[in-house]
Amino acid sequence: MSSTYGEKIKISVFGESHGNGIGVVIDGLPAGVKIDIDRLLIQMARRAPGQDKTATPRREKDLPKILSGMLDDTLTGAPLAAVIENTNTRSGDYSNLMTCPRPGHSDYSAFVKYNGANDIRGGGHFSGRLTAPIVFAGAVCRQILEQQGIKIVAHISSIGKVEDEMFNPVNIDEKLIERLNCAKFTLINEDVEDAMREEVENARLNLDSIGGTIECAVTGIDAGFGGPLFGGVEGEISKAVFGVPAIKGIEFGKGFELSEMLGSQANDPFRYENGRVITETNNMGGILGGITNGMPIVFKVAVKPTPSISQKQKTVDLQKKENAELEINGRHDPCIVPRAVPVIEAVTAIAILNII
Amino acid sequence: MSSTYGEKIKISVFGESHGNGIGVVIDGLPAGVKIDIDRLLIQMARRAPGQDKTATPRREKDLPKILSGMLDDTLTGAPLAAVIENTNTRSGDYSNLMTCPRPGHSDYSAFVKYNGANDIRGGGHFSGRLTAPIVFAGAVCRQILEQQGIKIVAHISSIGKVEDEMFNPVNIDEKLIERLNCAKFTLINEDVEDAMREEVENARLNLDSIGGTIECAVTGIDAGFGGPLFGGVEGEISKAVFGVPAIKGIEFGKGFELSEMLGSQANDPFRYENGRVITETNNMGGILGGITNGMPIVFKVAVKPTPSISQKQKTVDLQKKENAELEINGRHDPCIVPRAVPVIEAVTAIAILNII
Amino acid sequence: MSSTYGEKIKISVFGESHGNGIGVVIDGLPAGVKIDIDRLLIQMARRAPGQDKTATPRREKDLPKILSGMLDDTLTGAPLAAVIENTNTRSGDYSNLMTCPRPGHSDYSAFVKYNGANDIRGGGHFSGRLTAPIVFAGAVCRQILEQQGIKIVAHISSIGKVEDEMFNPVNIDEKLIERLNCAKFTLINEDVEDAMREEVENARLNLDSIGGTIECAVTGIDAGFGGPLFGGVEGEISKAVFGVPAIKGIEFGKGFELSEMLGSQANDPFRYENGRVITETNNMGGILGGITNGMPIVFKVAVKPTPSISQKQKTVDLQKKENAELEINGRHDPCIVPRAVPVIEAVTAIAILNII
Amino acid sequence: MSSTYGEKIKISVFGESHGNGIGVVIDGLPAGVKIDIDRLLIQMARRAPGQDKTATPRREKDLPKILSGMLDDTLTGAPLAAVIENTNTRSGDYSNLMTCPRPGHSDYSAFVKYNGANDIRGGGHFSGRLTAPIVFAGAVCRQILEQQGIKIVAHISSIGKVEDEMFNPVNIDEKLIERLNCAKFTLINEDVEDAMREEVENARLNLDSIGGTIECAVTGIDAGFGGPLFGGVEGEISKAVFGVPAIKGIEFGKGFELSEMLGSQANDPFRYENGRVITETNNMGGILGGITNGMPIVFKVAVKPTPSISQKQKTVDLQKKENAELEINGRHDPCIVPRAVPVIEAVTAIAILNII
Repeated sequence: MSSTYGEKIKISVFGESHGNGIGVVIDGLPAGVKIDIDRLLIQMARRAPGQDKTATPRREKDLPKILSGMLDDTLTGAPLAAVIENTNTRSGDYSNLMTCPRPGHSDYSAFVKYNGANDIRGGGHFSGRLTAPIVFAGAVCRQILEQQGIKIVAHISSIGKVEDEMFNPVNIDEKLIERLNCAKFTLINEDVEDAMREEVENARLNLDSIGGTIECAVTGIDAGFGGPLFGGVEGEISKAVFGVPAIKGIEFGKGFELSEMLGSQANDPFRYENGRVITETNNMGGILGGITNGMPIVFKVAVKPTPSISQKQKTVDLQKKENAELEINGRHDPCIVPRAVPVIEAVTAIAILNII
Repeated sequence: MSSTYGEKIKISVFGESHGNGIGVVIDGLPAGVKIDIDRLLIQMARRAPGQDKTATPRREKDLPKILSGMLDDTLTGAPLAAVIENTNTRSGDYSNLMTCPRPGHSDYSAFVKYNGANDIRGGGHFSGRLTAPIVFAGAVCRQILEQQGIKIVAHISSIGKVEDEMFNPVNIDEKLIERLNCAKFTLINEDVEDAMREEVENARLNLDSIGGTIECAVTGIDAGFGGPLFGGVEGEISKAVFGVPAIKGIEFGKGFELSEMLGSQANDPFRYENGRVITETNNMGGILGGITNGMPIVFKVAVKPTPSISQKQKTVDLQKKENAELEINGRHDPCIVPRAVPVIEAVTAIAILNII
Repeated sequence: MSSTYGEKIKISVFGESHGNGIGVVIDGLPAGVKIDIDRLLIQMARRAPGQDKTATPRREKDLPKILSGMLDDTLTGAPLAAVIENTNTRSGDYSNLMTCPRPGHSDYSAFVKYNGANDIRGGGHFSGRLTAPIVFAGAVCRQILEQQGIKIVAHISSIGKVEDEMFNPVNIDEKLIERLNCAKFTLINEDVEDAMREEVENARLNLDSIGGTIECAVTGIDAGFGGPLFGGVEGEISKAVFGVPAIKGIEFGKGFELSEMLGSQANDPFRYENGRVITETNNMGGILGGITNGMPIVFKVAVKPTPSISQKQKTVDLQKKENAELEINGRHDPCIVPRAVPVIEAVTAIAILNII
Repeated sequence: MSSTYGEKIKISVFGESHGNGIGVVIDGLPAGVKIDIDRLLIQMARRAPGQDKTATPRREKDLPKILSGMLDDTLTGAPLAAVIENTNTRSGDYSNLMTCPRPGHSDYSAFVKYNGANDIRGGGHFSGRLTAPIVFAGAVCRQILEQQGIKIVAHISSIGKVEDEMFNPVNIDEKLIERLNCAKFTLINEDVEDAMREEVENARLNLDSIGGTIECAVTGIDAGFGGPLFGGVEGEISKAVFGVPAIKGIEFGKGFELSEMLGSQANDPFRYENGRVITETNNMGGILGGITNGMPIVFKVAVKPTPSISQKQKTVDLQKKENAELEINGRHDPCIVPRAVPVIEAVTAIAILNII
C-alpha cells in the first residue's frame, strides 16, 4: 500500500496538510522535453480555490518549487521533484484532536491503520491538498502527451441532479478541448452553470454538501496500447483515478448502461473513414479487450459529496469508547467536483503516459 | 502491460484458447495452508458452462492439473502452478482468419497491438476461457482468506432490466453467503430467476446477447487495510476486476448514486455495537480514505453484453481495406453474467489477499 | 520475495524437483519474433547432464512443452509458457526426510521459512533442476536480442585453481562467440580442459566437490541503456544472476582488482574509432554511472562448490534437537560450473532484454 | 530504469548536484516508530566531508529538512520526505561544458542516454552528493531495524593494498558495532589507519586516486527471510548496493574464494548452541538458498578509485568528434572509501527492511 503510482513513469506523492510541505517526485520522464511553465501553472490554478471561471497562471507563494529534473524549463531525465511549502503550519496542541472521527472521512480507518500515529491536522496525508502535487505531475505528463498529439479533457458532467451535455464520444472538437482545458468551472454547455451553482449553494445554505460526476476523454491516442487481462487500459486508468480522494465509481463508454443493452446495440460497428478504421459509435469508450482501438477513451467518475459538513452528525468517541455527536466547524467546500476536474485529468495523463 | 497481477501475491495467467494449455502461476502464497480441493473445484464448476443451478466438484478431464506448489493438498510456499490442457486444439488453416474484426471484440485492437502475430483462434489470449485459471487462483486465495474469517460473495444483481435484491451492506447473512458460494445461477432472491432467464432467452432467440451487473461483497475484513491515494482499496480491487473481460464499470458502496446525494445522506454515522465501531449505513462500501473501516466491502460491476452475436454486423475487411459485413456462426453464450459471478469473486479474493 | 523477475519482461519460474512439472511463464515478449527451436534446444542441452563437448538439439522426453505464446514458432505476444514434466516422481514416504539439514544447502533456511511445509524431495523448489526453465526463458530472450545485434557469451573462467584465458574486454571475436555458444565444456583456451577435468575428478574421488568462476560478456549493446542509482545495469544483472543457485559473488570489469588500482590505471581512456566513441581499455566492464557505454559488458561470477558431498558432515537433528552426523548418498555433480555457464547466459539475456 | 528502489519500502531519490535541492521520499514506513534525530544526523555526518575520526550530530545548514511523514520525531506512516537544499547553485554558463567526457565517469554514457539534456553541472544526478539522501533514508530504516534487534555495521576492509582485519563472521562483538557505527574512518584494527591514510595521501600527491573495499555485516537477523531464485537475499542486497556510485563488485561470505574451495571446506557445519541452530563457520555469509540462516549476513564490496583525477587524460571531443586531452581542475576526494562506509550501511538497511 503506498502513495506511489506507475511502473514506467513512477509518481511518489508526499506531504501532510499541516506539515512543512507537500510535493511529488516523478521518475522516468523523457529527457529533453520542454515544459511550458505558464500552461503548467494554469492547471494548478484550476484546482486552486477561488471563484473565477477561467484560470490564469498566477505566480504566487503557493507555487510549486522545482527542486530537480528541470533545467531551463527542459526535462533533464533525472527525477522531477517539486515541493509546495505549507505556510499555514501551526504548532498548537493536537494530541487529543482525534477523538471523534468525522463520518465519511478517513479519520477512523486511518486511526486504525496507523494506530493513532498519523498526522491528523487538517486531514494530514488524506487532505485534498495532496491533489495539488498530483495536478503538477499530471500537468507535466499531459504536455509530454500533447507533443505526441494526445489530449486529455474533462468536464463537470453533473452536480446533484443537474447535468451538463456529454462529449460526442466519436469526435471531440479541438476548440472545445482548448476552452475546457483552461476553464475553472468546466462545462460543455455553459448554460447549466447557474443551475449547478444553485445546487451547490443550496447544499451550502443547509450546512450540507453535494456530489457529482466528471466525464473525461483522451483524444488522439492510437489503437494498440494497453493489453489483455490485468494489463488493460481500464484497470490502469482506474488504479490512477481511485487515487483521487472522494472518487467512488468509474465507468468506461456506456458503462453501467451497457448492463441493460443488447449486444446489437452495444457493439460499435467498424467503418473505414479516410483510410482509417473507426467505429460509428463509441459505447466501449475506445477500449476493446483492454486495448485502445483508436477512438477517444471516454469514462465517467462518481464524486461523493464532501464528507465535512457542518450539520450535527452521529459518531463515536474513541477515547471514551461511547457514542457521541460531532459538529465540524470551519469553512468547507460544499462541492469539490469543479476543482476535481483538473485532478481527474492529471491522473489520467499520468496513467496514459504509463501505457503508451 | 501484462497478464500479471499483484505485488505480494503475484498471479501470472497464460494460455490461448486453442493452444496446448492455459494456466496460472501464483507466487507468494503462504506455506502450510491446507486447500480443500473439492471446494476449489466447486468454484471451477460454477464458471464452467452447463445448466444446473448448484455446482458440484466433478472431476473431469477439463480439470486443472497442479504442477507445483502443493503437496498432500497443502501449499508448500513455492509458486503454485496449474494447467488446464486444451483438448480441442485443431491444426487447420487459420492464417487468413483475421480479416474482419468482430465489433465489440478485441479482434481489431489486438491485431494492431500484436501486428497480426497474435493467436486469434477462438479469441486466443482474449478468450473467456482464460478466466478458468483466474478462478483457480481465486479459489485458492479465498480459502486462505476464509481461514482468517474473510469471505467473498457475489451474485447476479441484474440481467438486462431484471434486478435481484441487493446485499444488506451492513450485515450479510452467513447462511446466504454459504448458499451463494455454491450456486451456479447466483441470486439472493431466487424468485427473479425465471424473469432473468427469460431476458437471456429472448436475446438468444433474437440472435442477440444481453448484459448485466454483479454485486460483490467482502465480509469479515478488519478496519485498517489499504492506504491513501494510489494505495487505496478501490484502486486495488478495480485493477483486478477490470482484468476480467467484459467489465466496463465499477462502483463502491452507493457509487454513482452518491453523485446525487447530499453529504448528510451519504455519510455513514459511526456507532458502537458490542464494543466495536460500526457504521449504521454503508454507503461508502466499507472503504474510507482508501482504507477498510471494518464494514463489508461492497461494490458492483457492469458486464457488457457478449459481443459475439449471430446477427449480421457492420465491420471492415482489413486485407481489402474496405467496409464489410460479418455474420458470426457457432454457439455463443448470450449472457455471460451468471458465469462471471465466480470470476469476480476470484479476482476480488486475489486483490484482498494482496492488501491484507 | 518471489520466484519472479523483471518489470518489462516478467519471468515467473515454478516447479519442484519431484513434483508434476517445472516450467516458466514469460510475459511481455514482443509479438512476431520467430524463434529457432533447434537453437533454443541447444541451450537446454548445454545445461543438461551428459559428457559430450558440444551440445546438440536432441528432441527427448525431457523437453519443454510450449503451452502458449507461440504459434508456428513465432511469438504471439501473449505470455509464453513452457512446462517440463517430471518423470521421476516417486510417491514414497518423505514425511520424515527433513531431519538433518545438509550443510551448505537451503534445507535448514527453507525449513524455517516455510515452517516445514516445503517440498524437500530432491531439493524441491531449490533444486538445480529449476535452472532448466530459466535456460528456456533465456534462450528465447537471447534470440530476440540477437536479432538486434546483441550477443551473450560466457565461459568457465576457472575451476578450482585452474584458469581459462579471459575475454579481450574491448573486442570479443564473433567466431569465438559462435563456438562458445554451442559448447558444453565452455572454454576459450581448450588446452586447459584436461587440467580442469582433473580438478573435478580429484574432488569426486575424494567424495568432495569444487567451485569455480564464470566470465560472461554482452556484445553489440549500444551506449545509453541503464540508469543512475538503483536503475543501474550492474544492479539489474546482479539481481538476475543471484537468482541462480550457488552464485556467491559478482564483479564487473576489473571488479575487486579495482580496489587496489589507481584512478590513472582504472579509468578507461576514450578514443574515436571509425567515427564511434570507444574506450582503449574496459576496466569498467562497459558500464559507467550504471549506464552502458557501448563497450562489451563484462562480468565474472563466483560459483560455490556443490554442497552435496558424500563425506561425513556435521549437522543437527531438528527433530531430536541435538547435534548429528550426516552422510549423503547418491550420485552428485562434483562441479556444477560447466553446466552453470548457459544458465548465467540465460539470466543475463533476461536482464538485458529488461533494460533495453 | 529509475532512481527508485524497493517494493515494501519504496525509496525515491531525487536531485542534481547544482539544482535547487536533493532529497528522498520513503513510502511504506511503519507508523508510530520514534526516530532519534541526533543518531540520524550522526550517520549524515559520517558521510559528510571532513577530517575528524568520530562523527557528531552537528546541526548545520546542510541538514535534511523533513517535509512530511514525521511528527514529534515519530513516523506518521505517510511518506517520509526530506530535502537538502543546495546552497552552491551558480547560474553561470554551462551549455558548452559537456564537450570532453571524463574517463571513468558517467559523462559519456549519460550524454548518450539523455541526448545531452541532462544537468551536467557538478555531475548532476550522478553526483556523489546524491548519497546524502540515501544515507538519510538508510538511517531511518536502520533505527527501525534496531528496534527489532537487527544491526548493520561496515568498515573499510582495504584501501589499495592496505587491509583492515575482517569481521569474525560467526559472532560480531556488540561493542565493536557500537564503535564502528559512529566512526568516520571506520576500522576494526585502528592501527592500520596511518598506513591507509598514507595510501590515500600518496595517490593525492600524484594527482591520482585509489580504490578499496568495504565489508558489511547484518547481525541479529533471524533465519527464514528471503527466498529462492530471484527472491534471494543476495540479489536484493546487490540491487541496493549497486545503487551506490563506484561499486563494481560484491561477494557474500567467502565469495570469490569459494571458487577455489572444496565443498568439504566451504560447507558450514551446523551445531546446536544454547538450543539454537548455528553454523561453526560462516563461509556462506549467512545466506543459504537465498534465505537467511540466522548467522550474520556478511558481504564485501569493491569500490573503484575516484575517476576524477587531475592528471592529463585521453578523451574525446564530442562536438568536434575528434580525440582530445583533458585536465580536470578542482579539489577531488582521492579516495571515497571512508565516506562510502555509511552509504553501504544505508542501502543495506533499506534492503533488509524490504525483506523482513
